Amino acid sequence: MKQLYFYSRLFFCSCLLYGTSSKAQEKTVYPTAAESDPVKMGWMVGSPPPENRILRFEDGSFFEFPGLRWSVAHMRQFMPTTNVSRGLGPSNPLQEALREDIGGVTFIPLGEKEPMTWEESLQKTYADGVIILHHGKIVYEKYFGALTPEGQHAAMSVTKSFTGTLGILLAKEGIIDERKKVTDYIPELKKSAFGDATVRQVMDMTTALQFSEDYADPNAEIWQFSAAGNPLPKPKDYKGPKSYYEYLPLVKKKGTHGKAFGYKTVNSDVLGWIIARATKKDVATVLSERIWKRLGVEQDAYLSVDATGTPFAGGGFNLGLRDMVRFGQLILDNGFANGYQIIPKVAIEDIKKGGNKNAFAKAGYPLLKGWSYKNMWWITHNEHGAFCARGVHGQVIYVDPKADMVIVRFASHPVAANSANDAYSIPAYHAVAKFLMKK
Amino acid sequence: MKQLYFYSRLFFCSCLLYGTSSKAQEKTVYPTAAESDPVKMGWMVGSPPPENRILRFEDGSFFEFPGLRWSVAHMRQFMPTTNVSRGLGPSNPLQEALREDIGGVTFIPLGEKEPMTWEESLQKTYADGVIILHHGKIVYEKYFGALTPEGQHAAMSVTKSFTGTLGILLAKEGIIDERKKVTDYIPELKKSAFGDATVRQVMDMTTALQFSEDYADPNAEIWQFSAAGNPLPKPKDYKGPKSYYEYLPLVKKKGTHGKAFGYKTVNSDVLGWIIARATKKDVATVLSERIWKRLGVEQDAYLSVDATGTPFAGGGFNLGLRDMVRFGQLILDNGFANGYQIIPKVAIEDIKKGGNKNAFAKAGYPLLKGWSYKNMWWITHNEHGAFCARGVHGQVIYVDPKADMVIVRFASHPVAANSANDAYSIPAYHAVAKFLMKK
Repeated sequence: MKQLYFYSRLFFCSCLLYGTSSKAQEKTVYPTAAESDPVKMGWMVGSPPPENRILRFEDGSFFEFPGLRWSVAHMRQFMPTTNVSRGLGPSNPLQEALREDIGGVTFIPLGEKEPMTWEESLQKTYADGVIILHHGKIVYEKYFGALTPEGQHAAMSVTKSFTGTLGILLAKEGIIDERKKVTDYIPELKKSAFGDATVRQVMDMTTALQFSEDYADPNAEIWQFSAAGNPLPKPKDYKGPKSYYEYLPLVKKKGTHGKAFGYKTVNSDVLGWIIARATKKDVATVLSERIWKRLGVEQDAYLSVDATGTPFAGGGFNLGLRDMVRFGQLILDNGFANGYQIIPKVAIEDIKKGGNKNAFAKAGYPLLKGWSYKNMWWITHNEHGAFCARGVHGQVIYVDPKADMVIVRFASHPVAANSANDAYSIPAYHAVAKFLMKK
Repeated sequence: MKQLYFYSRLFFCSCLLYGTSSKAQEKTVYPTAAESDPVKMGWMVGSPPPENRILRFEDGSFFEFPGLRWSVAHMRQFMPTTNVSRGLGPSNPLQEALREDIGGVTFIPLGEKEPMTWEESLQKTYADGVIILHHGKIVYEKYFGALTPEGQHAAMSVTKSFTGTLGILLAKEGIIDERKKVTDYIPELKKSAFGDATVRQVMDMTTALQFSEDYADPNAEIWQFSAAGNPLPKPKDYKGPKSYYEYLPLVKKKGTHGKAFGYKTVNSDVLGWIIARATKKDVATVLSERIWKRLGVEQDAYLSVDATGTPFAGGGFNLGLRDMVRFGQLILDNGFANGYQIIPKVAIEDIKKGGNKNAFAKAGYPLLKGWSYKNMWWITHNEHGAFCARGVHGQVIYVDPKADMVIVRFASHPVAANSANDAYSIPAYHAVAKFLMKK
């Protein structure tokens, strides 16, 4: 098991592409955002770089803080990936109406008493880039560290919301039937936990799975999933599954489906599998054809793949920040953008109305009281009806319909858990929304 | 050595990213282009694909014919890569003036008596895509197999001409001094064959190296180079160099520099190293900043990288066919395109005038009589002053100044040697040129 653990750690998933909390990490004192600035640290600069500034895939160093701050903006340099093409047409320009006064907006971090400014929150959360759209125009756009406007950044679990959006899009078009059993699409999952689950339960992660994402535990199932998806050759004595699709049929049930929200990455990969079966195309291709080629994005995006070429639908998406905000605006605008009704309005409505709050409450997130989870989006149910996509190092797509605002942020927080940055993020987004509504 | 050989074969270079002849291969009878069509064969289709339709990096299957016909259009799915960004601006449109009559143009293949049509030559050479520009407009554009207009294809040794073009660009700007010793830029090469070579000798491959690129010989140095650059973890008992930059200082001298042309990939990687040292940026970044962001291309391109992130300047470039033809037209137009003098005119003149024919003749290419090699371009010295970039599976950028014509072709010929397709390519290009000049 120890070797499997080590082998898994070699992989990018070792690397916490998902998201839960890790209490051990939270106690550590980390260098600040300024101290850990990846450009100032000089990662991968030189021909060759100095040995202590080389980040490698095979020893896992590429994903250890602070080096990971460079890696998240260069994931394709460490692993095989598949393109999500934007096609060859012109992009849909983003209008600007920049405001200098946003940086000084203040808020009280959750559980604290002293106010903090929006600008300070970006340092606190190790932001690599932030864009705010208000009434569809850019009012704020900043880049830090290794990210540039023309770069791509690991979205990690924000990927799930893309997969979930494709799921509800296809469901509303009748290509996937969410009331069906998962096994109606994937007979291979018959004996797994998914054997008696519905597509809808997978889409909302109310499946009951024996699947731990506790990264501190070498026996956690996440490491076995990670090892299966690792594109490197397996160790000689490795007997386990060798791809995402070999792993998923092995997931065991624990409890009763439909009762409680359980944030488990494998649900997104099962949904990705359903999408692939229903469309006869892989998730990267579907994402390209259905959204990326229609949205007027500026850049191709990409997904990491396992050794058999299967895209990692639960956490492998990488994209430009300006394109991520276009996607956020698409959701805000009920699926219409660039002259196309890209996503049916009813699909967006299904996201916005949210999921089962009681089921969500059972998952016990102390900072997310009253939230729900629907179609792989996190729904705040706050006074603005805001909802978001969340990545484990602080990546976010935050959509606030009442304020007509979208915030996107890439980040590389040292702690792989949203609980580490939520206190400085959630009230900050809401404060900016209220500020923009006043003006 | 056998294990090293096997390990090397695991890598994409195993895979003949370079180019010389392999007589053993030429005797084999291969399926035709139609029979080996990668889309019809169904490679990597399905979730998961059938086991006998999965192409893998780790066992080398991705680069075995006919599977390689799919892989050349999907190299990034097998290995780590680095982006060559086009930036975020608009592309420079390609004008069209399509002509249906080109397909029927006939020519006599070298060493044969019966004529063949242009269209037939595309099947014969396993073309994946072809564009012909005449007077700067597209007169012919076709895609086959796994390549689409929005796809990228492995350029393999065509990469060398991009690296060579960057070299002469920087030389004419005074950033590199071609009269200097290689070691003035790279002291690490002091004890190697490059220790007493000039930058110019590297740029023209007239260095005298003990470096075999005979793929049939497990002891050939190309396998050691390949093993060094392989991004996979090295075998436990592997004692050799672990990156391109660790390998290059080990290249031994054989003969006298400056006397004979010797087509050795390592020259391109040494030039790439010089470019990196002189600019303090890696070749992918220089290529992006100097050319890709100015040329008005439609797509980002990419380079494969070794385990330390060094781009493979001798064979790792992948790009769209339409962008490759823009680059060819840039060279034809003396370095001017999209409103920019991207490459100094004197740099293009230095390519066009060609290199030392006597030095070239010593390399003994029976089908390339009277040719020369300059700045990593192949110069035909034919009546049109044509010159070209050549990749080992039939990739080409063919520039004919007199006919004001550029032909680009991606291909995946089963034989990894231009000698296998030259007879059906070189006279075909010239016949099309003459045909276009008549009209």
